[in-house]
Amino acid sequence: MITGRGKVIAHVGYPTQSFKAPMIYNPWFEAKGIDAAVVPLGIKPEDFAELFPALFRMTTMHGALVTMPHKVAVTTMLDEMTATARIAGACNAVVKRADGSLLGDMFDGAGFVRGVTRKGRAITGASALVVGAGGVGSAIAASLAGAGLRRMGLFDMSAASAETLAERLTAHYPALEMSLGSKDPSGWDIVVNATPLGMKPGDPLPIEVDKLSSDTFVGEVVMKEEITPLLRAAMAKGCAVQVGTDMLFEMIPAYLEFFGFGHSTPEELRDLARLTF
Amino acid sequence: MITGRGKVIAHVGYPTQSFKAPMIYNPWFEAKGIDAAVVPLGIKPEDFAELFPALFRMTTMHGALVTMPHKVAVTTMLDEMTATARIAGACNAVVKRADGSLLGDMFDGAGFVRGVTRKGRAITGASALVVGAGGVGSAIAASLAGAGLRRMGLFDMSAASAETLAERLTAHYPALEMSLGSKDPSGWDIVVNATPLGMKPGDPLPIEVDKLSSDTFVGEVVMKEEITPLLRAAMAKGCAVQVGTDMLFEMIPAYLEFFGFGHSTPEELRDLARLTF
Repeated sequence: MITGRGKVIAHVGYPTQSFKAPMIYNPWFEAKGIDAAVVPLGIKPEDFAELFPALFRMTTMHGALVTMPHKVAVTTMLDEMTATARIAGACNAVVKRADGSLLGDMFDGAGFVRGVTRKGRAITGASALVVGAGGVGSAIAASLAGAGLRRMGLFDMSAASAETLAERLTAHYPALEMSLGSKDPSGWDIVVNATPLGMKPGDPLPIEVDKLSSDTFVGEVVMKEEITPLLRAAMAKGCAVQVGTDMLFEMIPAYLEFFGFGHSTPEELRDLARLTF
Repeated sequence: MITGRGKVIAHVGYPTQSFKAPMIYNPWFEAKGIDAAVVPLGIKPEDFAELFPALFRMTTMHGALVTMPHKVAVTTMLDEMTATARIAGACNAVVKRADGSLLGDMFDGAGFVRGVTRKGRAITGASALVVGAGGVGSAIAASLAGAGLRRMGLFDMSAASAETLAERLTAHYPALEMSLGSKDPSGWDIVVNATPLGMKPGDPLPIEVDKLSSDTFVGEVVMKEEITPLLRAAMAKGCAVQVGTDMLFEMIPAYLEFFGFGHSTPEELRDLARLTF
């Protein structure tokens, strides 16, 4: 229950209909007696450059959760970015520090990697195909590389996006074997959809599912529904999977610490959350 | 519990520490299953002209509760104002209509008058001294005049403010007897403090309380504490009183209807509210 002394976290994106964060953070704040709230604020792309800095001139504004389509655009509006955010070229969290300056970080990749690891899959020495080289795909790629991945495939509809990300990864992780341009899932330990495909009914599948092997682990970033068409197809092939909200719940304790709200766990957050699919 | 499909009501003012509305509206929304939230957004006076229109470019922004020091400034930023708001020269509620245009209204005075009436005091034919001719004082004066007051005293530290308000009142209500420039409470049926005096420890009292008669009804707009120093002095004199939150709770059903959230009552709102003094 936020008061006039509370801290507002703006959840900015557009459209806002599929936002999940308010229903996860706010029950946790309530349960912990923390005077703060996550508030959905729809900002269209053409307004973002003007409205995002305006938000932080409001005295109760403490931070922002940044989602599509602003995760890349926001990087030009900050005073400082963490290393993870710089490699990813995108931010999904911004905090206003005591001196008023804005620090950006990127937790999508950390959430994905933590979820995969907790499901018993090693990242160190493994191989992964990342489909989608936008904000979330770049973040997952950066975090997988940081966790010791040996070999990575990158696919994006925009070959240039995939190439740019591959260059940034290779600059930081020269031992990482990179291959580009294929969405064939055969031969990879891990395959992850980091595109929006699956958000809309009738979307094509993001990979060639008929070539999936049962020992490939399939991860998803789309949270429109728990079991997306990709995950349904992967489960039919016998694959282990990670749903989109797992990545979300795994990253939230990291966000809450970043915002200065203290310690939490994915289990606690999930128990308190009021999500419906 | 607001979702990404919810309606945000910005509670704008500065400072925000004494805001009460979030703790009144949000529990009611929760109890009624309404997907909306009142969010405290601190906006400094020098930022208001830029930030207020910016708020309404956000797609989830449905309306605003406007409080000190912006109730007068906001009147220049709207497409339309109700008659009450035009007479008061101030708005405390703004709604974005379906066509995107902004309509402003003013409920402070209606809340005060409804509260006094429900306590058994007639307004028609009575006399009232209104101390403070700012946004809330002007609103109370306009609503008292509209309810049939016979005689009104106006006092403000700024004689020009009181004179301007008196001219607007006389233009609309030529039969209303007006007197200006005294904060002596003797001889009035109703006396109301519509200044911020009582917000800070050590504030002087807004009227000459030693001259209060026990049959004068004393109203207060300050909500910093339930029994302000003015109300304490009035009660010691044997006066009937109306606390600041009575005005607040009486006006909220009118606000909720204005915003399109349906029917409520002051009693229901008060039972659900999570206010502490």
